[in-house]
Amino acid sequence: MLITPRTLSGFKDRLPRESIAKNELISRITEVFDSFGFAPIETPHLEYAEVLIKQGSEEIQKELYAFKDHGGRDVALRFDLTVPLARFITQHRHALPLPFKRYAIGNVFRGERAQKGRYREFTQCDFDFIGSKSISSDSEIIQVIRAVMRRLEVGEFEIAINHRGVLNGICEYLGIDDVNATLRIVDKLDKIGVEGVKKELGESLGLGGEKVEKLLELISLRQSGGSKEFFSKIAHLKDYNATLSSAIVELIELCEILDYLGIDEYKINFSIARGLGYYTGIIYETTLRELPSIGSVCSGGRYDRLTQTFSNEEMSGVGASVGLDRLLSALEELGKLSSRESKAEVLCVAMDKSHLPLLHKMAQSLREQGRRVEVYPEITKLKKPFAYADNKGHPYVLIIGEEEAKSGKLSLKDMNSGEQKIMSLQEVLEVLESRDER
Amino acid sequence: MLITPRTLSGFKDRLPRESIAKNELISRITEVFDSFGFAPIETPHLEYAEVLIKQGSEEIQKELYAFKDHGGRDVALRFDLTVPLARFITQHRHALPLPFKRYAIGNVFRGERAQKGRYREFTQCDFDFIGSKSISSDSEIIQVIRAVMRRLEVGEFEIAINHRGVLNGICEYLGIDDVNATLRIVDKLDKIGVEGVKKELGESLGLGGEKVEKLLELISLRQSGGSKEFFSKIAHLKDYNATLSSAIVELIELCEILDYLGIDEYKINFSIARGLGYYTGIIYETTLRELPSIGSVCSGGRYDRLTQTFSNEEMSGVGASVGLDRLLSALEELGKLSSRESKAEVLCVAMDKSHLPLLHKMAQSLREQGRRVEVYPEITKLKKPFAYADNKGHPYVLIIGEEEAKSGKLSLKDMNSGEQKIMSLQEVLEVLESRDER
Repeated sequence: MLITPRTLSGFKDRLPRESIAKNELISRITEVFDSFGFAPIETPHLEYAEVLIKQGSEEIQKELYAFKDHGGRDVALRFDLTVPLARFITQHRHALPLPFKRYAIGNVFRGERAQKGRYREFTQCDFDFIGSKSISSDSEIIQVIRAVMRRLEVGEFEIAINHRGVLNGICEYLGIDDVNATLRIVDKLDKIGVEGVKKELGESLGLGGEKVEKLLELISLRQSGGSKEFFSKIAHLKDYNATLSSAIVELIELCEILDYLGIDEYKINFSIARGLGYYTGIIYETTLRELPSIGSVCSGGRYDRLTQTFSNEEMSGVGASVGLDRLLSALEELGKLSSRESKAEVLCVAMDKSHLPLLHKMAQSLREQGRRVEVYPEITKLKKPFAYADNKGHPYVLIIGEEEAKSGKLSLKDMNSGEQKIMSLQEVLEVLESRDER
Repeated sequence: MLITPRTLSGFKDRLPRESIAKNELISRITEVFDSFGFAPIETPHLEYAEVLIKQGSEEIQKELYAFKDHGGRDVALRFDLTVPLARFITQHRHALPLPFKRYAIGNVFRGERAQKGRYREFTQCDFDFIGSKSISSDSEIIQVIRAVMRRLEVGEFEIAINHRGVLNGICEYLGIDDVNATLRIVDKLDKIGVEGVKKELGESLGLGGEKVEKLLELISLRQSGGSKEFFSKIAHLKDYNATLSSAIVELIELCEILDYLGIDEYKINFSIARGLGYYTGIIYETTLRELPSIGSVCSGGRYDRLTQTFSNEEMSGVGASVGLDRLLSALEELGKLSSRESKAEVLCVAMDKSHLPLLHKMAQSLREQGRRVEVYPEITKLKKPFAYADNKGHPYVLIIGEEEAKSGKLSLKDMNSGEQKIMSLQEVLEVLESRDER
């Protein structure tokens, strides 16, 4: 009996077109990571369940792919790359000179309810700077985000920046105790609106009146012009308390570096909350101007308690994660995604089996000159290889027939113009090279 | 209570040095795949268990990481990339123009008994040519293997080539019925020697005497000089039966192409059996001359029944798999592996916090010229960044102090010679560029 070929709900295959585009994104992203001196690491897809469970939120525990392995061990598929990083850092602490700058690109698994655009297996692209509390490293993560976005040619984007100390300081000033619960509600501002937030703050936390008005007023502060102007406008907040004051000083130091570098894609925005309990310092998220609706495509910030599950040593870090799947969909939607089914530039076709050795030799010569060349394996009427080249998007078809084999010349058909010319191998090479310059 | 940070037995972390080396291998391998017009695809790590179980051997079923997911479905981690390919081909048949040339690089999982050098999660690098029975595609897979080996600079290597039809034809000629069982024993020749094979053939299959002598004599035939010489020496085998005859004709056609291309790294060897039941045509394996003991680093061949579990349509393919983990160990053992902890060329250090913006600006300028530049985030005595650069293998350290900031010049320390010079940013760039040419 035949088995029905199918993938699990929430899991997907990538065909060549999408795979080529994804690999191209990854290659550009890693190029940027490398250029800042981040180095790759790799951890297993499967871990002891206890390593993952202790650190995950309750929701993530429900979504964990956990099971018993052959040895009866409780194991689970990783649900992110951060918990494995914490385990990695503690386990290999002796072998890692600090600061440790790593990136990791890999798949993670979450048994979420399947819905459009959400997958149970997806790719994360994390980069982190571990063991430095310097503002230099915060600034660098933002520099990397900007360099990645530019390298990916996503069009205009904005990096919204805040500091957890600003949010904590505001709550402290207003006498709000449950900061995390408050921010979790405030974080829904975009979704449920001002009135919705007010209602929920009242119902869940008993907050209301002037306190809530003031809270909403303060977190709605955001930079519109230059950073200096913004900081002078909010200078009085520094007097509210030490938490606010030191957070604002750090933001000012950060902006001094970013402004000096001519980075104008960022805006300070006090309503950004990000990930709640996890972050402890400067935080940020990145949205595309042409597609703000897809949400943040690269978020991150500073955290101080990365390794607390595994060690008593305090380990501060700062990092961010590029939302690769979101960026892929966004670029697709914006028509900015490469649409090649193959990277080959030319399809080589023989008219007779006896010309196969010569055909492969020609292809080999072109490859030795750095060209990407596909050989059509069958001997058939030209209609079939032409349709194949058309389908796959090869710009040229190169043909060896009786005459070509005798004369040592080749026929090259331009698949766009339909023009076909007889030329030498050297001339074929020149035609292919001339495309590079266009 | 703290959790002990540890990986599961048979699973491993890769630190930067090993990850950089692995990524470099993958990047070279995909460069070759792309140059032959193979395109990447991606399938999930997790599949319906039935998709994987039906095709796997009994041994693999025992090693399968299988469990029930949140929806009560029987699922399993893939144990290779070939079964998912068969599922993929059948499922997306309408969207794939034939011939379909794909590569896939990904991790697979086998719960084998843990032992040195064998992992339960490891990386496979498969490339296959589906839907063509032409000898052209067989020759191309061998061309790709050769190009990969050369690109990886593994030193001298040998591709041993055989044809399942040769082995079948020999058994047919000798009246041996259970070909697979016979070959499985003969395959142990290297391990248990001639006497061991004879003993086992007798005990397990009741084979002995002249039949076994002749069998061992025939499969020990192998090319030592040129292919033409070999084929003329064994020409009489073509008269034994049609199976042998057509297999030898295919090998001759293959060698004609390979010889014409100047490929002299192959040898016909009738003792190669490879994977037994799975392959149906030409088969090959690749060994390194300097490290034959690690076994084949790239094996493959032609198969005709790829999709039989999922479809009645016959789908012939030919492909091979690069043993990435084996190659990594081999290159390490041969001292041919890059030993960088980071790809950065220079570490930039500021002597005072006030110079951080300038430091980042210099780093940014160098990156804009294509250089890979790391910024040391802390302000400390120079001893620490020097030790850090030394540890990570940065060739240069660039320093901005009071004097440098005033004069607009920089100090560049060559970490190999220990020499330190004052120079302009342009001169720093020239020093870095001059390394490229070396």
